[in-house]
This record gives sequence, C-alpha cells and structure tokens, in this order.
Amino acid sequence: MMKIYKKAILPLGFTANGLYCGIKKSKKLDLGLFYSQTPALAACFFTSNAFAAAPVRINQEHLKHARVFKAIIVNSGNANAFNKNSGLSAARETVHSLAEILRVRKENVLVASTGVIGRPLPVAKIKQAIPYLVKGLSRGGIDKAKLAILTTDTFPKEISVKCDIGGQTVTICGIAKGAGMIAPNLACSERSRGVCPERSREATMLCFILTDARITQRALNLALLQSVENSFNCITVDGCMSTNDSVMMLANGAAANKLIDGDKNLALFLRALQFVCLESAKLIVKDAEGATKFIRVRVMQAKDFEQARKAALNIANSNLFKCAIYGENPNFGRIAAAVGASGIDVSEKDLKIKVSPLQQKEIKVEVWLKRGNASATVYTSDLTPEYIKINADYN
Amino acid sequence: MMKIYKKAILPLGFTANGLYCGIKKSKKLDLGLFYSQTPALAACFFTSNAFAAAPVRINQEHLKHARVFKAIIVNSGNANAFNKNSGLSAARETVHSLAEILRVRKENVLVASTGVIGRPLPVAKIKQAIPYLVKGLSRGGIDKAKLAILTTDTFPKEISVKCDIGGQTVTICGIAKGAGMIAPNLACSERSRGVCPERSREATMLCFILTDARITQRALNLALLQSVENSFNCITVDGCMSTNDSVMMLANGAAANKLIDGDKNLALFLRALQFVCLESAKLIVKDAEGATKFIRVRVMQAKDFEQARKAALNIANSNLFKCAIYGENPNFGRIAAAVGASGIDVSEKDLKIKVSPLQQKEIKVEVWLKRGNASATVYTSDLTPEYIKINADYN
Repeated sequence: MMKIYKKAILPLGFTANGLYCGIKKSKKLDLGLFYSQTPALAACFFTSNAFAAAPVRINQEHLKHARVFKAIIVNSGNANAFNKNSGLSAARETVHSLAEILRVRKENVLVASTGVIGRPLPVAKIKQAIPYLVKGLSRGGIDKAKLAILTTDTFPKEISVKCDIGGQTVTICGIAKGAGMIAPNLACSERSRGVCPERSREATMLCFILTDARITQRALNLALLQSVENSFNCITVDGCMSTNDSVMMLANGAAANKLIDGDKNLALFLRALQFVCLESAKLIVKDAEGATKFIRVRVMQAKDFEQARKAALNIANSNLFKCAIYGENPNFGRIAAAVGASGIDVSEKDLKIKVSPLQQKEIKVEVWLKRGNASATVYTSDLTPEYIKINADYN
Repeated sequence: MMKIYKKAILPLGFTANGLYCGIKKSKKLDLGLFYSQTPALAACFFTSNAFAAAPVRINQEHLKHARVFKAIIVNSGNANAFNKNSGLSAARETVHSLAEILRVRKENVLVASTGVIGRPLPVAKIKQAIPYLVKGLSRGGIDKAKLAILTTDTFPKEISVKCDIGGQTVTICGIAKGAGMIAPNLACSERSRGVCPERSREATMLCFILTDARITQRALNLALLQSVENSFNCITVDGCMSTNDSVMMLANGAAANKLIDGDKNLALFLRALQFVCLESAKLIVKDAEGATKFIRVRVMQAKDFEQARKAALNIANSNLFKCAIYGENPNFGRIAAAVGASGIDVSEKDLKIKVSPLQQKEIKVEVWLKRGNASATVYTSDLTPEYIKINADYN
C-alpha cells in the first residue's frame, strides 16, 4: 500500500528552510537548504552538457570523495554556469561557508543553482544569508525551500509517498523546479557508476528527493537510475538541454526499516521512487512555459526501449507537431515525419498513429511500430506564442 | 569570371512550364515541368527520412535503371507522402502519363511533390493537365514553373550564373522552394553512390538545378555532393526533416564545352555550382515561415567539418536561442548551452562567442572552439509568434 500526498512532507530526520538573500530582482525567495540530522547516502544524476555548471562539477568532486552527506544548498535566479572560473570558486565558497556553520566537512555538502546563465554568482550575499538559513531550519521550512528553488515556474512541484517497507513506514518526498530549457539528458554521477549506461538522454530542471529509507548504496543507485530513465529523461519542453539539470537524492535511514538491498523490499522501494520521479517530471511539463496542452506521446512495439524513446522524443521535440497541437489541428503527417526522421527501425506500412481529441487539455498520441515489444512514454507541451514571448523578453 | 543573375535563366536546350491543375484551393499554379531537349545526366539528393515520399522512391528506382533523363514533373499542394500504397501508384501514373506524351521511357522521367502530408494525390487532375503542360513548354515557361513549385513560400527562389568553362559559356540555374519543415538531411541517390558518405544531414525543400554543361557523371556527382553538404545540409528553419526534401540536377551538355571531368574545369564548375546551391539555400531561409531575422551561425576552429556543423546546427535549432534573437535579447548562455549539448569536443575555457548587433535584420553568430582548423556555417531564422500562427492554422 502506497499513500500519496500532493504536497511535500519531509521524511524523518530532515529539516529545511528558504529565504531571500538578494539574487532575484523580484525579491522572491532565492536560497534554499535541505538538511539531514544524520549522515545520509546520496545518489545523483547530472546534465550531460559539456558546459556543466560549477555546482554540478563541485558535486561530482564531493561524490567522489565522500560516502555520506548532510545538506544540499540551492540558489535560484543565477545558474552559476558559463561564468569562467568565478563559478567554481563561488560554488566552493558557498559550500565551505555552509560546512563551517554546520560543522561538517565540505565534501558532505552538495550544491545546486538555477537561473540565468553567464553571470557571476553574488556569493557574498549567499554567504551573508547562510547563518540565518541554518538557524531557521525546521520541519515546516520545506514550504519555504520548495519556493526558493523556483525560477519561471508558476507553482511549486511537490509530491510525497508513504509505504510500508521492511516493517516500517518509509517516506519519499520529491521537490522539483523547471518550466523552460527542459530536455534533460541526465547521466549518473560518479557514485552511481557501474549501474548506468555510458550516456542517457537530454532541462534546467532540478529535483531533490529525500527519503528516510535505510537502503544500501548499490540499491539506491539502481532504483534511482531506473526511475530517472523513465521519468526525467522522458520529458521535453523545448529540446534545449540545460547546463544545470540535476536530480539529487538523500537517504538517511531514519525510518529504521530492515535494510533494503534486493528482493521484495527493493521492488517496493523502486515502485514508490518511480512514482515520485514520474509525478515530479510530469509537474515540470504541466508548468511548461506558455503551454496550453499537456501531451503524452507513447511509442509501442519498438525493438527496444531506446528506439521507442528516441521516436517519442523526436515527435515531442517537433516544433511543427507542437504547433499543430496548439492549433488543435490534427496533422498525422507531422507525427509520421518526426518518426521517420528519428533514425529508428520502422517502415511506412507497419506504422499506426492514434491521437485523442485535440480540444482537450490533455492529449494522448499513440504510435505502434510493429517491430518488437518495447515501449516508452514521453511527456511534453505545445509550442505557443506565449512561450516565445517569455523567452524573447527573459532578461 | 562568373556572371550572377538574381533570376532563373534557362540553360541552352531546356524549356519549362507551369499551370494550375486543381490541387491548390487557392487556385495558384500547382504543376510544373522542366524539360531537356536532349538526354541529360542527373545527380540527385533526397531526404533521409525513413518515410521518404512516393516520388522520392520512384526517382530512386529510375536513377538505378536509367543513365539519362529528359524531364522533371513537380506538383505542389500535396506531398504524396504517407498515404500508403496509393502514393506509389499515383507517382507511377504521373510519370507514365508524362513519358507517353513525351515519347520517352518512364525511367527517363523524374518526379517531385510538396505540400500537405498524408493525403491521396489527385492524380486524375494531374493526368488531365499533362498534355497542356507539355504543349505549353517554352523558354519563358520557367517563370511559371518557378511559381508552380511553391507552397507557403512568399516569393520564388531563383538564381543563375554564367561562366566560361572549356571554351564555352556554361549556365547553371537554380529554382527552389521551401519555407517551413526545413532541416534537410540529404543523402545521395543511387547514381551518386561511391562518392558520398553513408549519411549526410537533416526541409520540405525542393531545388531543381539545370545546367547546359558537358560533364562526366562522376564529376557531376562529386560537384553536387560538395555543394549540397555546404549549402542545403547547412540550413534549418525548424529542425523538422521532411519526407520530400530533394535536390535534383540535370546536365544536358548543350553548351558544347570541353568535357568537364577533373582539373581546372571541374574546379570552375564546382565554384559556380556551390554558389547556386548556397544562394538557393539562403533564399529558403530568407523566406522562413514567420521569420524576422536571417541568422548566420559560424563555428570555427573545430576538429573537423562534421563537429563544426553539428555545433552550428545545435545552436541554429535551439528554440531558446531563436526566441532570444527574435526578442533582440543577447543571451550568450543559450548559445553556450547549445554548443555544450551538441556532444562535440569542446571545453568551457576555450570557447569564444561573438554576436553582431541584434537590432539588424541579418545577425551573425561566431563561435571559436580552439580544437582545430575546420569550420562550418549554418543559416537559420528566428522563432516568432507568426511561425506558430502559420503552423497552428496550416490545414
């Protein structure tokens, strides 16, 4: 039995906070903190963009050198990406400052940023705010943290599940952000190495997943890999891969359940985590910049999952298809052309396409390839004049 | 010396015509014919979309079985693509009907279609019109033919050059169409096999190139391959590869120049052909649906041409970049993110980006990678609310 809550409920042993430190012109909250009272295991997936932002690089170092983690600090309004070496030192200063106040090693702290690319991070403002951020940590602080990570989002993305695993109630909570520059191609971090393929797929999307489950590192990596591949790596808003995309998960074991490693308990945990990841990913697409439609593209009977996802992503990223959906204008030819351009194994005589009525807010596109038994579902939005307005006037 | 004419001038030995046969609701010209009085060599490049339209498939058969060609018939308003087997028989009937009236073998006729995908071609209307189309063939008919191939285009695309090669004046004339679904990935046809790579790049764009040059098949293939790679395969409007993209060239030898095979004469011919292809490709981008800007993305110091073009295409296909240009809003971060997402060899510290003032109609983006000596230039347009309007209301 899995209980679902459409809000963020902190698992045992976690506190959080959020405040305005001075980055956003709008004076909205722009600095958030997630804190585990006991050392937690981590599993992370980051963008495969060659210009990964400074916080992503710092995390990759920390994940290599530490086995447990205490906190994740996140700023919004500035991506701390593509600002030359200033980015790395700014991320390091942030981490160092937080670690000092928390009295932990800097490697035990993870960091994330989202916002405009190419500008120096105002690290002095962040450092000034950190003592207040830590002082204000509380269970209820999650409701500030979930706002502090937002940029062009119109609502916070939050989902929690509780389920019985290994004799205890385990909670998994997902807090996400993202509305544009969404086409994640997340690859696993150093810690997850060994369980993930060489590369995966194409957002700034951020998702922080907190759980009180007791689980082995190996099982945690495996569960997050499977969950990310079918969720965040299956969404696209505009086909533009960000420099900051990150899924960062902490598991602190505070539920004191029987250790999850394999078998039935891992299956239960995986099912719950998959739900949290998929719901978080769908919430990002539902808030897509300028969107009027939520589109589900399902490709079936493919040779393998990769081919199914490739075809589905090619449809979902087709501007012509997205315009047709916006116009409520059925155009099977554009769907077919996108499948044909995807480079997968397919023939015209075998292809079948079905599209639900276009007057509704949620659209379902189904494609059959007659090549095998694999399938993939990709979530996307329509392309609208409002998307262009948002992104033409962003700065 | 190369003389340039910004209009279609038929080379020696060619005639053409265009008329309204009943396909387009707008009652604009929708059937065109290019005719060579003597048998001509052909070189063709077609879409690499798995669902290549029926005319493309018929041409591939003809190019396999015939060595010389007499005519190209083109309809607009209907792509004759993705309409099951009706497409192939409709294309065959068209060709058969024309061949009979011209008194040539059906293999000596080539065919092209452009327009809406997924509808049966009204072949009866075409067959009825063919006798009039042939009867009206004339030197001046090119001015009807160039209109008969248009769809959402706002102007005809035409360019001609004359140059002295092998003791005679050789003329090369390019007539093109295309405004949306432009992201050619043209691969060479059967006849060109052996000189071209396994696959090339990502329009419905059509371009018909006519020349009176005397040239060997090998030299013709080589010259067209080099010209297409740097022109049509370097443009993108919306990243959507069509099922109908075709570049079809006829060379009838009527100029009676010394046979072009290699050496200096091929170099002269190549230079002229490259100019015709590049100008035709640029005219397509200049007429891009809804565009307000013409953008030239040049990537330099790449390891090889493929990496340079890949990075340039990734920038040119970025919706966020295209929106920023529309908004006249400089955003280097979006350019950098697109380069980083392209999967090429690059590092943040080596990357340099320069963008010309955005208030102008023509924008130049320059990117330096510091990896080698190769470069590529890709041409594209901005993404505007008008593009969405056109493509939401298309049907």
